[in-house]
Amino acid sequence: MQSLVLERKDELSLRDFPAIDREEEVLGRRDVRIKMHTVGICGSDVHYYTHGRIGPFVVNAPMILGHEASGTVIEVGADVARLRVGDRVCMEPGLPDPNSKATQLGMYNVDPAVRFWATPPVHGILRPTCVHPEAFTFKLPDNVSFAEAAMVEPLAVGVHAATKAKIKPGDNAVVLGAGPIGMVTALSALAAGCARVFVTDLAEKKLQIAATLSPAITPVNVGAQDLVDVVKPATDGWGADVVFEATGSPHAAKTVFEPLAPGGCVVMIGGQPDPILYDAGAAMIREARVENIFRYAHVFPRCVGMLSSGAIDVKPLITRTFEFSDSVQAFDIAASAPVADVKMQIELPQ
Amino acid sequence: MQSLVLERKDELSLRDFPAIDREEEVLGRRDVRIKMHTVGICGSDVHYYTHGRIGPFVVNAPMILGHEASGTVIEVGADVARLRVGDRVCMEPGLPDPNSKATQLGMYNVDPAVRFWATPPVHGILRPTCVHPEAFTFKLPDNVSFAEAAMVEPLAVGVHAATKAKIKPGDNAVVLGAGPIGMVTALSALAAGCARVFVTDLAEKKLQIAATLSPAITPVNVGAQDLVDVVKPATDGWGADVVFEATGSPHAAKTVFEPLAPGGCVVMIGGQPDPILYDAGAAMIREARVENIFRYAHVFPRCVGMLSSGAIDVKPLITRTFEFSDSVQAFDIAASAPVADVKMQIELPQ
Amino acid sequence: MQSLVLERKDELSLRDFPAIDREEEVLGRRDVRIKMHTVGICGSDVHYYTHGRIGPFVVNAPMILGHEASGTVIEVGADVARLRVGDRVCMEPGLPDPNSKATQLGMYNVDPAVRFWATPPVHGILRPTCVHPEAFTFKLPDNVSFAEAAMVEPLAVGVHAATKAKIKPGDNAVVLGAGPIGMVTALSALAAGCARVFVTDLAEKKLQIAATLSPAITPVNVGAQDLVDVVKPATDGWGADVVFEATGSPHAAKTVFEPLAPGGCVVMIGGQPDPILYDAGAAMIREARVENIFRYAHVFPRCVGMLSSGAIDVKPLITRTFEFSDSVQAFDIAASAPVADVKMQIELPQ
Amino acid sequence: MQSLVLERKDELSLRDFPAIDREEEVLGRRDVRIKMHTVGICGSDVHYYTHGRIGPFVVNAPMILGHEASGTVIEVGADVARLRVGDRVCMEPGLPDPNSKATQLGMYNVDPAVRFWATPPVHGILRPTCVHPEAFTFKLPDNVSFAEAAMVEPLAVGVHAATKAKIKPGDNAVVLGAGPIGMVTALSALAAGCARVFVTDLAEKKLQIAATLSPAITPVNVGAQDLVDVVKPATDGWGADVVFEATGSPHAAKTVFEPLAPGGCVVMIGGQPDPILYDAGAAMIREARVENIFRYAHVFPRCVGMLSSGAIDVKPLITRTFEFSDSVQAFDIAASAPVADVKMQIELPQ
Repeated sequence: MQSLVLERKDELSLRDFPAIDREEEVLGRRDVRIKMHTVGICGSDVHYYTHGRIGPFVVNAPMILGHEASGTVIEVGADVARLRVGDRVCMEPGLPDPNSKATQLGMYNVDPAVRFWATPPVHGILRPTCVHPEAFTFKLPDNVSFAEAAMVEPLAVGVHAATKAKIKPGDNAVVLGAGPIGMVTALSALAAGCARVFVTDLAEKKLQIAATLSPAITPVNVGAQDLVDVVKPATDGWGADVVFEATGSPHAAKTVFEPLAPGGCVVMIGGQPDPILYDAGAAMIREARVENIFRYAHVFPRCVGMLSSGAIDVKPLITRTFEFSDSVQAFDIAASAPVADVKMQIELPQ
Repeated sequence: MQSLVLERKDELSLRDFPAIDREEEVLGRRDVRIKMHTVGICGSDVHYYTHGRIGPFVVNAPMILGHEASGTVIEVGADVARLRVGDRVCMEPGLPDPNSKATQLGMYNVDPAVRFWATPPVHGILRPTCVHPEAFTFKLPDNVSFAEAAMVEPLAVGVHAATKAKIKPGDNAVVLGAGPIGMVTALSALAAGCARVFVTDLAEKKLQIAATLSPAITPVNVGAQDLVDVVKPATDGWGADVVFEATGSPHAAKTVFEPLAPGGCVVMIGGQPDPILYDAGAAMIREARVENIFRYAHVFPRCVGMLSSGAIDVKPLITRTFEFSDSVQAFDIAASAPVADVKMQIELPQ
Repeated sequence: MQSLVLERKDELSLRDFPAIDREEEVLGRRDVRIKMHTVGICGSDVHYYTHGRIGPFVVNAPMILGHEASGTVIEVGADVARLRVGDRVCMEPGLPDPNSKATQLGMYNVDPAVRFWATPPVHGILRPTCVHPEAFTFKLPDNVSFAEAAMVEPLAVGVHAATKAKIKPGDNAVVLGAGPIGMVTALSALAAGCARVFVTDLAEKKLQIAATLSPAITPVNVGAQDLVDVVKPATDGWGADVVFEATGSPHAAKTVFEPLAPGGCVVMIGGQPDPILYDAGAAMIREARVENIFRYAHVFPRCVGMLSSGAIDVKPLITRTFEFSDSVQAFDIAASAPVADVKMQIELPQ
Repeated sequence: MQSLVLERKDELSLRDFPAIDREEEVLGRRDVRIKMHTVGICGSDVHYYTHGRIGPFVVNAPMILGHEASGTVIEVGADVARLRVGDRVCMEPGLPDPNSKATQLGMYNVDPAVRFWATPPVHGILRPTCVHPEAFTFKLPDNVSFAEAAMVEPLAVGVHAATKAKIKPGDNAVVLGAGPIGMVTALSALAAGCARVFVTDLAEKKLQIAATLSPAITPVNVGAQDLVDVVKPATDGWGADVVFEATGSPHAAKTVFEPLAPGGCVVMIGGQPDPILYDAGAAMIREARVENIFRYAHVFPRCVGMLSSGAIDVKPLITRTFEFSDSVQAFDIAASAPVADVKMQIELPQ
């Protein structure tokens, strides 16, 4: 049974991997066993590959990559109630301690005990099967494909951000950054009620892709245009009700309040390794609310519902698909950061 | 200058009407004068025609009907800043006391001093021109027609209801009632983030129209099906996150908690002349939140923005258009409550 | 080991009771064993005694009463992390399914699977010891007595109600009903930010007790005064920002909107066996928000904190204390509904 | 008629001042004329005195100081409805444009058009009388003194901050800074539902004063103790639910997330002339919400109500009172920043 293993920084191999962890592979009473179908390549997977670490998480031992996944249930534990063998599913990759205070309060994503796929020392799921709790495994309707379902994980970031923003119908929003997370955030903001979304980037190609997603998306190349000069006239001088920071760039982060309307909300999505500059004066005169988000919670079934009903369409974001046998090559291409690609996926043999 | 005058219950005439009210027709420093273009016929207009009153509001003197309107600015007051002669606009029909506590708090719609068009003793706007404050007059983008703009008033009810519901992206909703307000509420709920909306009625024809509005709308004929039997399986047994009561029927109102999910929200839109039965036990075990709404506040520019961006399309709801010279006939048809019509509009001569 | 057993309607006995339920008495890895100290008598305990049922919950077999309790930890499970033998504690009486959707969302109180002490078929804790999960057991600071700690359960209802109301500092509130729940709700509303609380009842004696709790409480005998005539002048004509319904009387429930301010909130606390009359018109013109609450969630540690800091003082509510050997007599007195008593408690032998 | 005039930086005089501004002194139909009684000295008044400017606001012409005031109504305009001659009142010092979008939305404090007392070029009220709109003038109950009423303005900052924090009953809070604003914020946080408030400073004397305000306040000298080491054990390892930044120090501002609990809220109160360092990583792993506040809105009558009911007691904060004839001396003392003084006030001759 082959898995895609990050042996160490810069070294990937597709090879047999011994039973990962006895406890994990044993099917608990509330667990299901899943045959993997499609796994998306995330920037964090690539970053582990090219840097061997993300902040405090260091790859000290061979680790299987991948955490954006869909598949089919092939075995169910004794107390599994909702799922059945044969169900097509997608899986939430982070598992909290069910008894922690954060989890009890409904904020399991900020539980420090969360174990998250492909985050050392937890293995990812670029492998044939995995065992996962039913509570974090979600059935797919017939009209949601495996490829779309493997997009639920990144989409969940955007939907969580849009939820935290408390968008009111007819709000205007700015999304800083037209990478994969910026794209799903723009789609999520529109689905969540925005009338218009301005998406910024420096890469014209990415902006062109963003513009194709919806007529309500206005691309803004901030290398050529001042964002405020675009947003203010388009909002009758009021500014954007919500600004999503999805670049992770400190340069962009320090500008978040400029296009913001009085009483508006900034959502910080992009990770920042170092403290950023915060324009407290600009934040105060607007009485800005700033929401800082960390992954997502409770949104997977919501994403599946929106994909199924047509409220969100992620298919245009899936720009390339590889066979599992080509997955090392796929990662090498991903590592080259091709500007025309939003999301690459790998299909496992069925 | 002809106006459509409700002389008394059951008697309409299209006739010259003397200067309505000196104060109203004088252009204040912050007012604009508007040439009317399109006016929608609302159920309340028809009710005044057929009953001569709505609750405490009694037609004791001839009154001009109409409050869903769009037109063109033909004169501006000295301190008008945003609008110019020639601007195409729609108008919010209720004007509060700007110094009342409710208005200061941002809830001008619940200010008891509100003066609302075509609500005795205030005249409506089925007449050639009117004077209106700039602050309640909203410019239309080029891609929003006069007909769509005259739909903003009823749409505002739905958008306000959806705003108060605090919909999260991916929520599932029920709208009780497929009349014009039920329809705009369903569209608003989808625009505000719902994945799916179940719309109920007893009239199959209305449900068929509702079903054409979006693939995410599921019509439920509650004469033939039990609503709970439809909603529960479609929501994995959880129930609807939001239930909008848009029938005004006491029979429907008493059932609002049945399809509701734990922690869900009921929005009471339909007016009820008498106290209704409230299933407090069903509300409690769900910890339901109930929002009671009254018209709308702050949503007109949001509606215009969503019509312009394509987030909401009201064109399918405009089922018939009359010339102003045929407006008595239009009201007679509207009074017959034709099941195939959602919204009838009247166009004034330009 | 004696327990207070409700043998059947109208028949209580203090007697040996066989090991209640094998599973319950076995100490799980995350459980603690508690020696009971003080148990309060709740209206629901009395109602089971005098009626043999509450709604769908019927006493079909002998059941131990009591669910308002404090005690001392005498044994801890292997994975218990926070608590130690000797810790003084109070206990939350309802245990949800940790894997239910409601629980995951942080609303464990509305999980239909909740097992609640002294609610058939679950035994209460008027017995020497019990086993309870650490997650629902809360350590007491030194300055919180066992008697106060046994008040946390009823207090939690008031604090949960005040939390759901989203009180803003300086709000004015009305509490309908000066029974034990009305009293804790008034204290909670003040602690949560209210400037003033108007408490209503028909029993003058209860109102006198309420008035002693705080100078910010105004008693209103609604047999002698019209509530609106008191509230309106005291709030500059605006009305109460929050109205708590704590009587459970349908007569009171139908009046909840009368003293309410525009944009105000009604919190329904009192259980209602039958549908009540709801003045939808009055609710709408105020755009009232109605919160329906069911017990409480996440508030026990908050209550303990507020008792310890002095933010809330429940000591004046504890009007009589009995020895465990007199507990049948205590229930007979409680069943006579003595108007001068707010809360009676029973102390178990230590 | 003498006024306290800031002639220029470092030069104050108590002298006759010509009619300030014709329009201001004319009594409008909805205005009242007020004889001043007590005016508090704010840090901003002192800063204009010692620096001649605050950020973009520069003293280019003689300006009367003072904006924390109480007095007595001596004349009312024709349309004044609530107030009467002889009413004792306090006044909100900032007046927005009633027609601005921010004002209509209920956020008048962020309206850029606000004219605020003693902010160039608007004069303050250290003068015998002023004219003010009824809508921003609030009647005092008999049990609120003029001295307490002149504390409403700084208290309003704390109450607004506590309102924005959306404190839940039983929350634990940290207030960074034990200056006047830190003190009123601590009192407001307690009144708004906090069980405990930790107040930090480097000045031991200020902390001692803070500690006397309530047994629920814990002073923390951050020169001697690590704040996190105090807060974590006191909150069962969870952290503070709310952190108020009331120092205006960039050094303090960069630490705001350290003591914060998961899902907690930071409220930025202290003004910051320059961008501050923002620990985005610490904010994210907690999913912190950050509220940035600017003065206050809608809280004056709430503050009056809480002073009257005893919910908040500001009397201990009034540490020195001067006669108007000594007001230059008072400012010189205030400018020396005496550590034992919280608030100094000036009484005008009656």
